[in-house]
Amino acid sequence: MGTLPRESDEREAAGAMSSIYLDNNATTRPSSQVVEAMLPYYREHFHNPSSPYPAAEAVADALRKARGQVARLFGAERADEVTFTSGGTESIQSAIGAAARAANGRTRILTSTVEHSAAKASARHLSEQGFEWVQIDVDREGRLDRDALFAALDERTALVSLMLANNETGVCTDLSGVGEACRSAGARFHLDAVQMPGKGALDVRALGADYASLAAHKFHGPKGVGALYVRSGAPFEALVVGGPQEAERRAGTENVPGAIGMGCAAETARMHGTDADALERMRGLRDRLETEILAAVPGANTNGASQPRVPNTTSITFPTVDADTLLMLLGEAGVAASAGSACDAKRRGPSPVLLAMGRSEEDATRTLRFSTSHETTESEIAGAVAAVRASIEALGSLD
Amino acid sequence: MGTLPRESDEREAAGAMSSIYLDNNATTRPSSQVVEAMLPYYREHFHNPSSPYPAAEAVADALRKARGQVARLFGAERADEVTFTSGGTESIQSAIGAAARAANGRTRILTSTVEHSAAKASARHLSEQGFEWVQIDVDREGRLDRDALFAALDERTALVSLMLANNETGVCTDLSGVGEACRSAGARFHLDAVQMPGKGALDVRALGADYASLAAHKFHGPKGVGALYVRSGAPFEALVVGGPQEAERRAGTENVPGAIGMGCAAETARMHGTDADALERMRGLRDRLETEILAAVPGANTNGASQPRVPNTTSITFPTVDADTLLMLLGEAGVAASAGSACDAKRRGPSPVLLAMGRSEEDATRTLRFSTSHETTESEIAGAVAAVRASIEALGSLD
Repeated sequence: MGTLPRESDEREAAGAMSSIYLDNNATTRPSSQVVEAMLPYYREHFHNPSSPYPAAEAVADALRKARGQVARLFGAERADEVTFTSGGTESIQSAIGAAARAANGRTRILTSTVEHSAAKASARHLSEQGFEWVQIDVDREGRLDRDALFAALDERTALVSLMLANNETGVCTDLSGVGEACRSAGARFHLDAVQMPGKGALDVRALGADYASLAAHKFHGPKGVGALYVRSGAPFEALVVGGPQEAERRAGTENVPGAIGMGCAAETARMHGTDADALERMRGLRDRLETEILAAVPGANTNGASQPRVPNTTSITFPTVDADTLLMLLGEAGVAASAGSACDAKRRGPSPVLLAMGRSEEDATRTLRFSTSHETTESEIAGAVAAVRASIEALGSLD
Repeated sequence: MGTLPRESDEREAAGAMSSIYLDNNATTRPSSQVVEAMLPYYREHFHNPSSPYPAAEAVADALRKARGQVARLFGAERADEVTFTSGGTESIQSAIGAAARAANGRTRILTSTVEHSAAKASARHLSEQGFEWVQIDVDREGRLDRDALFAALDERTALVSLMLANNETGVCTDLSGVGEACRSAGARFHLDAVQMPGKGALDVRALGADYASLAAHKFHGPKGVGALYVRSGAPFEALVVGGPQEAERRAGTENVPGAIGMGCAAETARMHGTDADALERMRGLRDRLETEILAAVPGANTNGASQPRVPNTTSITFPTVDADTLLMLLGEAGVAASAGSACDAKRRGPSPVLLAMGRSEEDATRTLRFSTSHETTESEIAGAVAAVRASIEALGSLD
């Protein structure tokens, strides 16, 4: 079942060396601790946590422990503020939908122009149902127009949904005062924290969030599981209805191994995200990658590098090189990177994030994202720089 | 991470012998092949299938293979009629919601009175939005009132949603002619097939279904993944929106290991479900369990045993014994069974299925479900019968 002839054939044909994975904002490799933590819940402890016998109650206990671990990653006050979902997209949609349904006559939804497609699709859906969706601009560096945000945040506003760190550029949104302003205006505040774990501190209470979303596979946990923070007292209505699981907030037999894996990954991400040395090392490798690519490729530019960013991400626009072609050559050389969001990769057209930052369509289609993890090494950075240089030379764009 | 002190303590305290698992309608043990098939997709092939490099494309290929395996289990014509979801509940809700949104002025939703809470919650939700939810009765044996169904199925009907096999009694719904009648009336037909795989044949085309739902963990696949069949040409609008994954039918990074595990489990379930010898063996063990419990406990009765049933399920009402107490004693003796649906176990109150079958509240609270799998052995059946007898003797209800 696990054989993948196509991959090995292609890799062999391309003469690929060992793989250099710089697409961690798309997904991460589950850590071996995470996989080991999950396995007993596939093999021995497979019982339904809702069932009424000791083996099932032990599974329910393990689920409670995982909920506590994820609550600590959020910076939540209580474990019961955490609901396990099927991933970041479901979490985001659940939060935005719940806030809208509790809007009590308020009809405005505020987001930025650079939110993830999950938030934008939810807001678009609501705008088709009579809500007014206002997208606040960012500048060329990806910096949110805070004046415009605060001006638009009034008694008509049901919800503000903003990302903590952008998935394409890594730019961190300046959220100071946003939580308070939402509270003053009587609006709800949803925080898309999907790209933060392991790359910095997360504290939903300090940020004044009513809702916050995470996806385990973005921080070395498994795919297919996410979490939603709902502050005690914030209104909530389930997106997925049926059985009474997850305190009636998310119906369906719980993905126990997924939740266990997410809990384990949350512990590590919380440690990494608050470890100044680990973050500095991560930042150092990203900066080296960025600096050396810019030095190797005259005319290359970064996007958002002047701003506070998560320390693993760089977005680089290349001169006269099509991103898809460059990605293909890098892929053949064993380097995994991406052109914008994996979630948008199959949608044709240039990155909406870069267009929102005032880049031309042409620039947007000449832009690559490299995203590291705590597993990334110095020699991988050197290898990636060499592969970029060789690929661009092969394309005849370096003189 | 994988240690469960509470379970082992309790089990030791109870002097439990090896565990006898007869709660397979709640969830099943993932087969070792399934776990082995998933592992490479946690460890090496962790890439995002939407990403643009060879390793990710190999993951996308593996996902395509799994989709084909699940399509064959459904009896679908084409693999692209299958969408992976987070489980049975999401599948059911997606199908019912999509049919309602495409209803074109039709306002009636038909279900039976014994549907799973996922279907009922979806229908209730729609009834709060102006749809008319009509529940067709079953008789004391769990047999659907087909005359009432056909009488109610008219040009006002948007959707008929029926289960193929009941999760509590195992009773199979007589669906002959239902697909054709839906088509004639211009209504959509959703089939809740969650309890069928491995226990009998499944053929969405022969049944004329527009939509059908499955959950992997009910047939030795992993929790947290399900599938939705949408017949080519049937209308569909996504429940979970955002990125373009799953042909825009289900947004969010795909649960790749889950889908791979479901595909592997689907192959085995299709084999078991069409293997007359395997089904006969399963039926023989269930019948032995049922017969010997009825013989050991005077006054005990089966529910739905006169009807065609899946061969692994029996529902037995005990005289003068509270189900929760009996379950606790059985649990201490290492026998896992349940009182109705695991999804309803935490909701207080007697089984809605048994009440719909005309049982008294008292009878409903004295009823246990035993559900076997292809892994169940003769000696486990003997052990379960002995444990039931001993537990009832301990309760002083046998003279």
